[in-house]
Amino acid sequence: MIAATNTSPLLLNVPQTLKVLGIFIHDELRRFGLSKAVLGLSGGVDSALSAFLTARAIGAENVHCVMMPYRTSSPESLTDAQKVIDALGCTSERIEITPMIEPLFEADPEMDKLRKGNVMARMRMIVLYDRSAKHKALVIGTSNKSEGLLGYTTHYGDSASAINPLGDLYKSQVWELAEAVGVPESILRKAPSADLWVGQVSEEELGLKYREIDILLYYMVDCRESDEELIARGFEKEYISKTRIRIRNAQFKRMPPVIAKVAERTINTDFRYPRDWGS
Amino acid sequence: MIAATNTSPLLLNVPQTLKVLGIFIHDELRRFGLSKAVLGLSGGVDSALSAFLTARAIGAENVHCVMMPYRTSSPESLTDAQKVIDALGCTSERIEITPMIEPLFEADPEMDKLRKGNVMARMRMIVLYDRSAKHKALVIGTSNKSEGLLGYTTHYGDSASAINPLGDLYKSQVWELAEAVGVPESILRKAPSADLWVGQVSEEELGLKYREIDILLYYMVDCRESDEELIARGFEKEYISKTRIRIRNAQFKRMPPVIAKVAERTINTDFRYPRDWGS
Repeated sequence: MIAATNTSPLLLNVPQTLKVLGIFIHDELRRFGLSKAVLGLSGGVDSALSAFLTARAIGAENVHCVMMPYRTSSPESLTDAQKVIDALGCTSERIEITPMIEPLFEADPEMDKLRKGNVMARMRMIVLYDRSAKHKALVIGTSNKSEGLLGYTTHYGDSASAINPLGDLYKSQVWELAEAVGVPESILRKAPSADLWVGQVSEEELGLKYREIDILLYYMVDCRESDEELIARGFEKEYISKTRIRIRNAQFKRMPPVIAKVAERTINTDFRYPRDWGS
Repeated sequence: MIAATNTSPLLLNVPQTLKVLGIFIHDELRRFGLSKAVLGLSGGVDSALSAFLTARAIGAENVHCVMMPYRTSSPESLTDAQKVIDALGCTSERIEITPMIEPLFEADPEMDKLRKGNVMARMRMIVLYDRSAKHKALVIGTSNKSEGLLGYTTHYGDSASAINPLGDLYKSQVWELAEAVGVPESILRKAPSADLWVGQVSEEELGLKYREIDILLYYMVDCRESDEELIARGFEKEYISKTRIRIRNAQFKRMPPVIAKVAERTINTDFRYPRDWGS
């Protein structure tokens, strides 16, 4: 929809995208009857961009950033998150999630790093939603489209928010936009990591490169190209089919719970209003 | 859809409803490629019914129930939850959420009971989803339709699940079905409570009676009756309009996060597959 003509199909029309996202954040907040926003700053590029976009839309004085390190979180993450806060001049607080999490970890020594990571992501959701209630502020999402499609998110964790300005931007586009709005260099340059355990690197864990998969996702999802068309573009058959399966297997994370239908009208089946009714 | 002819429009065709819900639980589990289920038992009638339905559908040996008391939870809740476990013969465990929660409560002495209650409901979601990963078991929902429509749930807390067999049953129907499947008397008879603080009573907090509101909701939502039709049935105008507003204001809790559209196809806008694709 909003694309500049250039060599990469992912290159954005930056001014137009910024305008759309600014209006989105501003108007959605007003629809909820709120004037403030809260978001979790991880030190990564996604949450940094969300914070910058939100501050542009409603003023940094209405943005509250929460840093939620765990015992093993990289100190660099905290430094980078602080850079965002300093650049914007928004309010912030730091809440260690370690004491809330340890009782669960200690009670089950067999818990692997994936389970631990999910607990951490969800614990951050709890803190953010609590702060949202405290400050009468909307929780702004920080998940991008690449992760959303591939399911590289924690269900009811980092994927949970009220509104998400990044959900339709591929990771490559997040980088592009982040650079345009002035996200600090050290954040732009570092390798993506959910920082849920020491040494975690997103692209290694996913087994793919964002700049490659984003282009495949764009042709596959946005352009609805068939396997034949994608192969003709040079993508390998196995890479294509693995990606399609990944997107399908993550579908449940993008949906509300499935409700058994037994009545005339069922929530999320045929009781589904346009969300702006009456506003 | 599945209603018996009788004086109350809410009376169920019990055998048919049980059949539909049994098939739903069984088939949805298989679609996820799983054979086990996990659910949180609060001691209340909703989770008791969910446990009974799940045990009927897939066998009690495949059901794992988790009791998650907080320091202030009623001891009676635990006794009642244990009665369900004993009646079914499923596996169970008890995880105190108190130590996980206290650090957050202690750090903010101004936190009111509503914020605390939401933290507790979400902490239980964390434990359930972790156990879901541990046991390769699906999280079964325990929220009924009355609560879903009125928004009397914690977003990303008790409302979070993979599949929900109760989501299309009004509270009155939960009682009816619970009695039919043999949920213990003490659970059927007690006043509904989320038990998030001492003395909490759902109907007092909501300011309404389930047996009354359920009938209004049925005519309003399932039968799509207008205000005029509802008034002709004897409902007060203010009660009707308050209920409509309540349903509308809770709409966000029934939906995934709102994503800003900037591309050709956007998650949950025009990237929306029937969830059973390819299964």
